[in-house]
Amino acid sequence: MIKIGILGGGQLGRMFLQNALRYPYELHILDPDPQAPCSGLTTFFTNGKLTDYQTVIDFGKNVDVLTVEIENINVEALENLEKQGVKVFPQPNCLRIIQDKCLQKAFFKEHNIPTSEFLILENKTELIKNKDFYINFLPAFQKLAKEGYDGKGVQLLETEQDFSKSFETKSLLEKKVNVWKEISVMVARNSKGEVAVYEPVEMVFDPKLNLVDYLFAPQKFSNETIKQKAQKLALEVIEKMQMIGILAVEMFVEENGNILVNEVAPRPHNSGHHTIEACFTSQFDQHLRAIMNLPLGNTSLRSNSGMLNLIGEAGFEGNAHYEGLEEVLALPNVYIHLYGKQKTKSGRKMGHITVLGNSEIEIIEKIQFLKKSFRVIVD
Amino acid sequence: MIKIGILGGGQLGRMFLQNALRYPYELHILDPDPQAPCSGLTTFFTNGKLTDYQTVIDFGKNVDVLTVEIENINVEALENLEKQGVKVFPQPNCLRIIQDKCLQKAFFKEHNIPTSEFLILENKTELIKNKDFYINFLPAFQKLAKEGYDGKGVQLLETEQDFSKSFETKSLLEKKVNVWKEISVMVARNSKGEVAVYEPVEMVFDPKLNLVDYLFAPQKFSNETIKQKAQKLALEVIEKMQMIGILAVEMFVEENGNILVNEVAPRPHNSGHHTIEACFTSQFDQHLRAIMNLPLGNTSLRSNSGMLNLIGEAGFEGNAHYEGLEEVLALPNVYIHLYGKQKTKSGRKMGHITVLGNSEIEIIEKIQFLKKSFRVIVD
Repeated sequence: MIKIGILGGGQLGRMFLQNALRYPYELHILDPDPQAPCSGLTTFFTNGKLTDYQTVIDFGKNVDVLTVEIENINVEALENLEKQGVKVFPQPNCLRIIQDKCLQKAFFKEHNIPTSEFLILENKTELIKNKDFYINFLPAFQKLAKEGYDGKGVQLLETEQDFSKSFETKSLLEKKVNVWKEISVMVARNSKGEVAVYEPVEMVFDPKLNLVDYLFAPQKFSNETIKQKAQKLALEVIEKMQMIGILAVEMFVEENGNILVNEVAPRPHNSGHHTIEACFTSQFDQHLRAIMNLPLGNTSLRSNSGMLNLIGEAGFEGNAHYEGLEEVLALPNVYIHLYGKQKTKSGRKMGHITVLGNSEIEIIEKIQFLKKSFRVIVD
Repeated sequence: MIKIGILGGGQLGRMFLQNALRYPYELHILDPDPQAPCSGLTTFFTNGKLTDYQTVIDFGKNVDVLTVEIENINVEALENLEKQGVKVFPQPNCLRIIQDKCLQKAFFKEHNIPTSEFLILENKTELIKNKDFYINFLPAFQKLAKEGYDGKGVQLLETEQDFSKSFETKSLLEKKVNVWKEISVMVARNSKGEVAVYEPVEMVFDPKLNLVDYLFAPQKFSNETIKQKAQKLALEVIEKMQMIGILAVEMFVEENGNILVNEVAPRPHNSGHHTIEACFTSQFDQHLRAIMNLPLGNTSLRSNSGMLNLIGEAGFEGNAHYEGLEEVLALPNVYIHLYGKQKTKSGRKMGHITVLGNSEIEIIEKIQFLKKSFRVIVD
């Protein structure tokens, strides 16, 4: 039987696996946490570090196709496995670019992909030493070059006073743009070069946590021009990267309709969770089709939809307890997805809820009701 | 965490589990086959016989809610567990009736549920001894009272000559009716007494295997009267049984539009597989909602659909190999579900494919294409 290895056994691996069970493949998972959401869901769960060269080699050499659910992987090991004939999708060279936000931005610039202005900072000392230069670049977002995730490793620098909180290590300074809407477009590509692109979704962020709070699909502003421009841009990115697999392309839409690529993720993504129920082909199925070089699936939406992230409530840390399940399920066409994480803490992604509806208004009302009714607290 | 135990770890258990992963429940499985489709998909898999009293007691006493994916369970053990406070759904008294086809028929008769004429046969000797009486009842289907499944334990007796092939043990003789269509209606009920009923589906049987070959949802004949009569009948059955969980009610439609209940299955059923992609709430999710006393979900169809069973091809026995995966996936809105069974043999249910489409014609054409393109053979 063909073996697929997944580097990372969190919620994305779990939802990938839930779908992949339908296929004639054996699923192997590597994760550093023995209690990861995927543990116990396959006989082939290995506990080990994704950043450790030998661990990744030992895991990867036993599978036919290797994929990821997280960017922070030992890329040298992946390059070596690729040389040994393991199919690694997304390819190591794509991962190398994407896992370093500075390289990612440079890639956009080099390939004429519109993106916000940026500077690369080696360290805090450089910033302080040349503060007069950098002041002119404010306000700007500072992003750690590597290992930022789920809103961590990102901060806004507005004035000179903020320089004192600068990250110590390599980072990216992105000039703040006037964002009208933040959107995301999922796009997939297989080894034959076939591509498939989803409708843009509109993301609404939690300003405190810097995480997606909820999203709408399709985007609420029904502007065909923006939709087409965004889809074209997403296709351009995946084709210029020659990437195989699914790619989330996050974008800023400015008030004048101008679109800038913010950043990309080479895997199923939070902004594609609604596709499970809202689209003919889920992002997890599309990723599987792409990496297995199968025909890609229909990306069309089957109805209007929204997705609400379920985040561990501030002030609660311990064994997760969910309040409001019955209220959620009393609503028609609402789908709860809990990730099987035993412990909750403030800001932790514990699950999501997808809602389907006939209109934007219905989606918004359902999401507002869910935000009031459902809580992730402790026992 | 609330623990759900499932008696049986075959494909129905597997699909139940695939969906149930979204909920805050711990899933426990008992199956006699260590290689069952559910093995390896949960840490809490127990290998043991479902018909063994002590095995069922030992498994069941550790869970909060116990359900089944097969009827052939030790009911005494379930009754004992129920007394100990375990919630057993479907309830043992419903299982007791349903697992004996003679009791099932008697239940229909007692509660004025229309069903075909029948006789109960204690054994073959009785048939031979009173053959002059039984000849007048031909043609008739003979069904083993217990343990028939997937088309096994059923045969047609047409003439006196057929009496020699009679089953030896207790059986049911059902007078053959002129069936115009065979339909099935899924219906669910929770502990609050809330009910939810699906649209009837039309089943087309493989005459050799006596298994569902494929089905259409909604039923092809768009006759509102028949649809409403069938749904009303399904609701009547579950309410008269006071059953909790999901129930498949298989029916015969005679040419004059008369509907007879054929038999029922107190669990997710082959005739409800299309609900995973075709309905807002899948039969597996509905069953979970019913047994956990949660609000029942919307049963509406989201589009026309069909479902094709994938059966092990005659003449092939050994490690399963699937031919035509790429052709299947090249069709839009087609979903393959393989059950993870290592070994195939003639007539074994190895998976199914659901197709969605805009019209009956599209569904039929897709199913015909799939029947030609996909095969379950050996390595």
